[in-house]
Amino acid sequence: MSKKFVYLFNETDGTMRNLVGGKGANLGQMTKLGLPIPQGFTVTTEACTQFYQDGEKISASIEKEIFKNVKELEKISGKRFGDPSNPLLVSVRSGARVSMPGMMDTILNLGLNDEVAEGLAKATGNPQFAYDSYRRFIQMYSDVVLGFDKSKFERLIDEMKHERRIQLDSEFTAEDLKLMVKMFKQIYFENTNSEFPVDPKEQLLGAVSAVFRSWENPRADYYRKMNGIPSEWGTAVNVQEMVYGNMGPTSGTGVAFSRNPATGENKVFGEYLMNAQGEDVVAGTRTPEHLDTLANVLPKVHKEFIDIMKFLETHYKDMQDVEFTIENEKLYILQTRSGKRTAHAALQIAVDMAHEGLITEEDAIMLVGTEHLDNLLHPTFDQEELKHIKPIGTGLPASPGAATGVVAFSVDQVVDFHKQGLPSILVRLETSPEDIEGMHLSEGFLTARGGMTSHAAVVARGMGKTCVTSAHNIFINEEMGYFELGGKKLVKGDWIALDGTLGNVYGEKVKTVPVKISGYFEEFMGWVDNHRRLGVRTNADTPADAKQALAFGAEGIGLVRTEHMFFEGTRIKAMREMILARTGAQRRTALDKLLPIQQQDFENLIVAMEGHPITVRYLDPPLHEFLPTSMADIKELAEELKLNPEEVNAIVTSLHEFNPMMGHRGVRLSISYPEIAEMQTTALINAYIKVQKAHPEWNLVPEIMIPLIGDVKELQYVKKVVVETADRLISKSGLDMKYQVGTMMEIPRACFLADDVAKEADFFSFGTNDLTQMTYGFSRDDAAGFLKDYQDKRIFESDPFQTIDQEGVGRLVKMAVELGRKGNKDLHIGICGEHGGDPLSVEFFHKAGLDYVSCSPYRVPIARLAAAQAAIKEKRSKK
Amino acid sequence: MSKKFVYLFNETDGTMRNLVGGKGANLGQMTKLGLPIPQGFTVTTEACTQFYQDGEKISASIEKEIFKNVKELEKISGKRFGDPSNPLLVSVRSGARVSMPGMMDTILNLGLNDEVAEGLAKATGNPQFAYDSYRRFIQMYSDVVLGFDKSKFERLIDEMKHERRIQLDSEFTAEDLKLMVKMFKQIYFENTNSEFPVDPKEQLLGAVSAVFRSWENPRADYYRKMNGIPSEWGTAVNVQEMVYGNMGPTSGTGVAFSRNPATGENKVFGEYLMNAQGEDVVAGTRTPEHLDTLANVLPKVHKEFIDIMKFLETHYKDMQDVEFTIENEKLYILQTRSGKRTAHAALQIAVDMAHEGLITEEDAIMLVGTEHLDNLLHPTFDQEELKHIKPIGTGLPASPGAATGVVAFSVDQVVDFHKQGLPSILVRLETSPEDIEGMHLSEGFLTARGGMTSHAAVVARGMGKTCVTSAHNIFINEEMGYFELGGKKLVKGDWIALDGTLGNVYGEKVKTVPVKISGYFEEFMGWVDNHRRLGVRTNADTPADAKQALAFGAEGIGLVRTEHMFFEGTRIKAMREMILARTGAQRRTALDKLLPIQQQDFENLIVAMEGHPITVRYLDPPLHEFLPTSMADIKELAEELKLNPEEVNAIVTSLHEFNPMMGHRGVRLSISYPEIAEMQTTALINAYIKVQKAHPEWNLVPEIMIPLIGDVKELQYVKKVVVETADRLISKSGLDMKYQVGTMMEIPRACFLADDVAKEADFFSFGTNDLTQMTYGFSRDDAAGFLKDYQDKRIFESDPFQTIDQEGVGRLVKMAVELGRKGNKDLHIGICGEHGGDPLSVEFFHKAGLDYVSCSPYRVPIARLAAAQAAIKEKRSKK
Repeated sequence: MSKKFVYLFNETDGTMRNLVGGKGANLGQMTKLGLPIPQGFTVTTEACTQFYQDGEKISASIEKEIFKNVKELEKISGKRFGDPSNPLLVSVRSGARVSMPGMMDTILNLGLNDEVAEGLAKATGNPQFAYDSYRRFIQMYSDVVLGFDKSKFERLIDEMKHERRIQLDSEFTAEDLKLMVKMFKQIYFENTNSEFPVDPKEQLLGAVSAVFRSWENPRADYYRKMNGIPSEWGTAVNVQEMVYGNMGPTSGTGVAFSRNPATGENKVFGEYLMNAQGEDVVAGTRTPEHLDTLANVLPKVHKEFIDIMKFLETHYKDMQDVEFTIENEKLYILQTRSGKRTAHAALQIAVDMAHEGLITEEDAIMLVGTEHLDNLLHPTFDQEELKHIKPIGTGLPASPGAATGVVAFSVDQVVDFHKQGLPSILVRLETSPEDIEGMHLSEGFLTARGGMTSHAAVVARGMGKTCVTSAHNIFINEEMGYFELGGKKLVKGDWIALDGTLGNVYGEKVKTVPVKISGYFEEFMGWVDNHRRLGVRTNADTPADAKQALAFGAEGIGLVRTEHMFFEGTRIKAMREMILARTGAQRRTALDKLLPIQQQDFENLIVAMEGHPITVRYLDPPLHEFLPTSMADIKELAEELKLNPEEVNAIVTSLHEFNPMMGHRGVRLSISYPEIAEMQTTALINAYIKVQKAHPEWNLVPEIMIPLIGDVKELQYVKKVVVETADRLISKSGLDMKYQVGTMMEIPRACFLADDVAKEADFFSFGTNDLTQMTYGFSRDDAAGFLKDYQDKRIFESDPFQTIDQEGVGRLVKMAVELGRKGNKDLHIGICGEHGGDPLSVEFFHKAGLDYVSCSPYRVPIARLAAAQAAIKEKRSKK
Repeated sequence: MSKKFVYLFNETDGTMRNLVGGKGANLGQMTKLGLPIPQGFTVTTEACTQFYQDGEKISASIEKEIFKNVKELEKISGKRFGDPSNPLLVSVRSGARVSMPGMMDTILNLGLNDEVAEGLAKATGNPQFAYDSYRRFIQMYSDVVLGFDKSKFERLIDEMKHERRIQLDSEFTAEDLKLMVKMFKQIYFENTNSEFPVDPKEQLLGAVSAVFRSWENPRADYYRKMNGIPSEWGTAVNVQEMVYGNMGPTSGTGVAFSRNPATGENKVFGEYLMNAQGEDVVAGTRTPEHLDTLANVLPKVHKEFIDIMKFLETHYKDMQDVEFTIENEKLYILQTRSGKRTAHAALQIAVDMAHEGLITEEDAIMLVGTEHLDNLLHPTFDQEELKHIKPIGTGLPASPGAATGVVAFSVDQVVDFHKQGLPSILVRLETSPEDIEGMHLSEGFLTARGGMTSHAAVVARGMGKTCVTSAHNIFINEEMGYFELGGKKLVKGDWIALDGTLGNVYGEKVKTVPVKISGYFEEFMGWVDNHRRLGVRTNADTPADAKQALAFGAEGIGLVRTEHMFFEGTRIKAMREMILARTGAQRRTALDKLLPIQQQDFENLIVAMEGHPITVRYLDPPLHEFLPTSMADIKELAEELKLNPEEVNAIVTSLHEFNPMMGHRGVRLSISYPEIAEMQTTALINAYIKVQKAHPEWNLVPEIMIPLIGDVKELQYVKKVVVETADRLISKSGLDMKYQVGTMMEIPRACFLADDVAKEADFFSFGTNDLTQMTYGFSRDDAAGFLKDYQDKRIFESDPFQTIDQEGVGRLVKMAVELGRKGNKDLHIGICGEHGGDPLSVEFFHKAGLDYVSCSPYRVPIARLAAAQAAIKEKRSKK
């Protein structure tokens, strides 16, 4: 049997997401649930793949299947495609496996031509509706299928409004609209040298192809890259009987959420417009009404809708985002999906639903995205400073948070400011999908139009950006590059600030501070901690970072970069003296100066961590990083150290390396200069002894980490120095202190020989940054340039420095874990590369059987959540 | 049962080399064969290891075992240790698993003290012999066990000769020698504050300990590093009854080879001295007699010895190096081992022995070392130039070849000249083991003393250096830094030249040319080719190199580095224009200029290779390597290209990379600029089409190699460009030409994903240089400095860039081979890194199942031999 490429909604259900897309699966599922769904059919994602395999053509067999289903739809609806007396009109919408809001294109009212429009006018007795639908169809079809510039049509509409002296589209008469259709077709002809297609079948194939093609448009592509969606998935196409929200005063259309997507409040929240089609609500060209007012307009419909919303939420066990249309007082549900929400709302909804008994704790954990927690940790304004600052205006609080930046009126300006290192706020009449990339780079959006479900608002919540929409009495001149609000004129580059929670706009820079985490956060994170197996530590070099991480739930420090302690003030001087030493004795003299400084730093850090474990990595970077490079600085240094400048310069030059990343660094330094390891051990163990004596309630176990091991003999050599030094000091102290010596796993070779290395190591900590560099042969400092080409040319779907490469680097990690445990069954294994805070990578580390991840303080809650979700996913996959 | 640490010679045999060392095993074997061997016992290599484990102490149990064996030896010899009336004296010699000539120390005449010496004098009626032996013993014991400066004793001997007005040691009277003993003991006391040990047992333990300790002395260490001998092996100690070559005119001692070690001639070749001990022959202080003259002195002994030599050679199936002693007309064999030989002799001996039916072809192949072939390929003098140059002197042709360099009188001077890039010739009275390191760095040695078996001669042949010893009438003043020969005075830094085959010394620089390979070479290499499985190709970029490699038996080119074609003259200009292009069009214009140049280069190379396959690697290095760096050069370039210098400088700066080895290079260039791959494909395929048409007798199949692949998608991307271009050109040509597209395997990640990569590749070629860099995280350009620390501190035994690291890099290679063949059963696999010419690495590649290795032209014969030896070893290990 050959593959089936088209399914009626009543042939599908929620389990078929991969085949019919998310939207298709929901429509099938809702049909099954008996909800009032306009019926239709879905052309599958596999048909999309086939479309590209066939050279961007719909094959004859798929075409045949589509029209077989059109026939079925005619039977269901009792209407006929292209029949003027009883016409079937359809919408054509994309629907990929996962929701890609604003990315894909939609065509409404497909099936109209002159005859059908006239028939529809007669059948409905509403010619204004019929011709309004017709002109919208021509507009959308031209835009989506042929890529016309929308402004060609909009300019004409504006001119006609001006002539007729009217404000709103709905004020056009049927005759106006009939004329408009004629003129639109003329525009179409002028631009394509062909007539607008009158055959509904031709229209349908054109529209399906256009949806397929839009899967590969640059915006969709960018979205996929941002979200790690493989381009192989393809999109399905949903062809659905049209229902009309623009059929008159008892018709309307809207969008609603089963709970408030901004606050999480357990109350249906929505917006609608009477006598309008869906595009009008989302586009933000008319400011929609609050859903509650529908109770006054159409109370029965309102009640039915609220009931359906609750039914859907209970069924899907998640807050739903629903599109609906009312056609002459009859309610239709057009689609439902899990609703985007703010971080605050995500937490609130998850915990509330669990409290309500609707979902389990596990479900609640799975309902909160790691990106939500990230947003929760975004800054708010400094309230003290805010006391003295008055907003210059207000608008709708479309996406919460606080943002400050310079005014930009276009994506290009955002990009320019970004290059200059300036945060910016995008100020626009309204935003559109073309702006996606620029929006990503700005701090927030301020728009003149649009509601809580406008493009700007939806994107802002998805991206965790601050957004204020429909600012009152704002005047924006994008072309001239200024806007006026509250009597103030602000130009490109001026500082403004947005409060997305209150909807306030400030005409100046406002200081931001981190949010205080409160409300459900602690309760939720408690659940999270109960469900995760992976430990979460932090990478921190200072007491301040350590305290912040502890507050965020870190269970220890997984990485102290000791070299960070050597860069300031007098330290760098002693460090340089050490590097320039010509004899072991001179080097020791310089190290003796560093010793008390480093010991004091360690003491402070140990105290700050309140007894939690700390892994201290020994000196890692190449020595030349500590030396000056300009001749002037070299002369100054030479004077300070009473050395000959030429000699200093010669040493600086001799330390230059062609590839410092693979040069004299890490353990290699300690092998050349074991006295460095000796000094660091002395400082660390003495600090621990001192703090242990002051805090006998803590059971302190120093963890010493040797970086860049490639062979067990390297570790043995340095370990000998460490052990001799540590044992001597501990024995002298009279304490019974244990300590651990472990190693970074960041050189491919070490992973191969991990069984041997583990015999000498108490712990491994994967340095996935270096491991990624060596495994790919990519210098992180240099790769950005060509990795851009790689992503543009689809060679890489994601950046291996952001999310761990499971096929290559990941295989080394798994091999090292397996061999390591074979060599030492008590081996403790973690990861302290930047992947430790990336949720996808955390899931991988969980599966690879690591004991902990370590990440920057602000990523700690994210890592905790990702670890819990990984554990739950694993549990569920085993069921 | 506890471990046995000491064995009598009659308890061991030739199979026990690992336990009793090479010398011990030979003595055991010869005892078993019934040869006249002074009996003794061996303290095992395991005892050496135990010695170091016990903190450089001989344990009580080993001590007990030693003296138990002394008792046994007393029974065998009928003499008693320390018994003045019938004293047993012994020699104590080191003996590791493999011969380490000159590295380890020897003590003779152990067991002597005042009483025993007096007893020996009476028993033998030869007090001169007794006291000569005694004074030698004190000298050697002080030197070896206590590390005295030899000169302390030698100065005294010289003074006494001066007083007595005698020239030779043998002219001292017994009274002289008795006095000398007394004075030597005085020197001993002054330097140690203790009496010379009189107890033979104490002497024996001291000597055994000294041999064990000498295993770790710096010279032995250096030799091991040079030869890749693990320090764990340890050395055995052989304690053997003394026989006396210095007992009078019918006694003597000598060294002989069963065939001529310089020429390979099938005739016993040796040297001896009457009334002397072994040290006298080797040290070169007296010029020894040719063995043939022994037929006149002691004809019976001579015949017996010649017979034994032939017997030993037949038994061991190799040319033997035998030490012998005649004590009062009785012949003793002291040791036998495979003799060191010149490259020429090695080949001659191996082929002769096979012709004689003594050994098989396989044996013959195993008898020639790869280092021998290396030496065979060393240069000789330009004979034309030599017509006009007269030698200033002659000496013994101790090690053949031709060398020219500046005069150095010490190791330090050799090292200094080496640093300046100057070849040098070490000119010395005689050489000693302390000089090993410097000798390694010089081109050859010229000595005033010593014969063909002197230290200088033995070392030279082993190292493949040119050597002339015992130069006639030479006067060398090492301290003043000059020497006189043939009426010419030459000072440090003057050029000289040595002909080691003729023994000529030239007082100026003489041009050298490569040897013409002749004689048995072709026949031998024919056998080699019959026995190897690995193919051998060459790395060559020019027709000249290609032809040289073909002459050396290369079966194709495994690596053409195309970038080498872009560095000269007008090419670099077009290359720079290409790099500085701001648009694709500009880049194409520049590439169009490079195209004909590259095509012509390819044509020449293809013709030079006469139909053999050629693997062409596409552009590999980062682009900045082609650009100037100084501002002056940048200005000049800008002027040439009519560009703004600042702009050019900006581009040069922007191309700078922090770690270029892991930067924008290899396939990454072709992904950013596919037009480069297109141009290279056009040039290559057009060149092949042209040559194929001119040579229809050849079946040409271009092999295109894409470097630095880390992911199959990289290969797919570039391959598409290559295939489209190649197919178009081939189709236009009307030829039915096949071509292959393959990839370098040099990125660890590619090895992990080799099954995927192989699906797109016709061949793999391992780039083990880069693979080693990435696997270790070692930048080859930077590692030399710290790798020295690694070798000094025993962390690495060998340089992973020289011999492949089997544990790490090798594991990646094996994994990639296995996965690659799984992905593509027809995959052709080779290696073109510098390891391709390293014998140990070749053996590894054979075992890993590669199809071929590729190396520089001069290494081709070595790789062929190494490949054959690997195949034979494998075959034998399976028996």
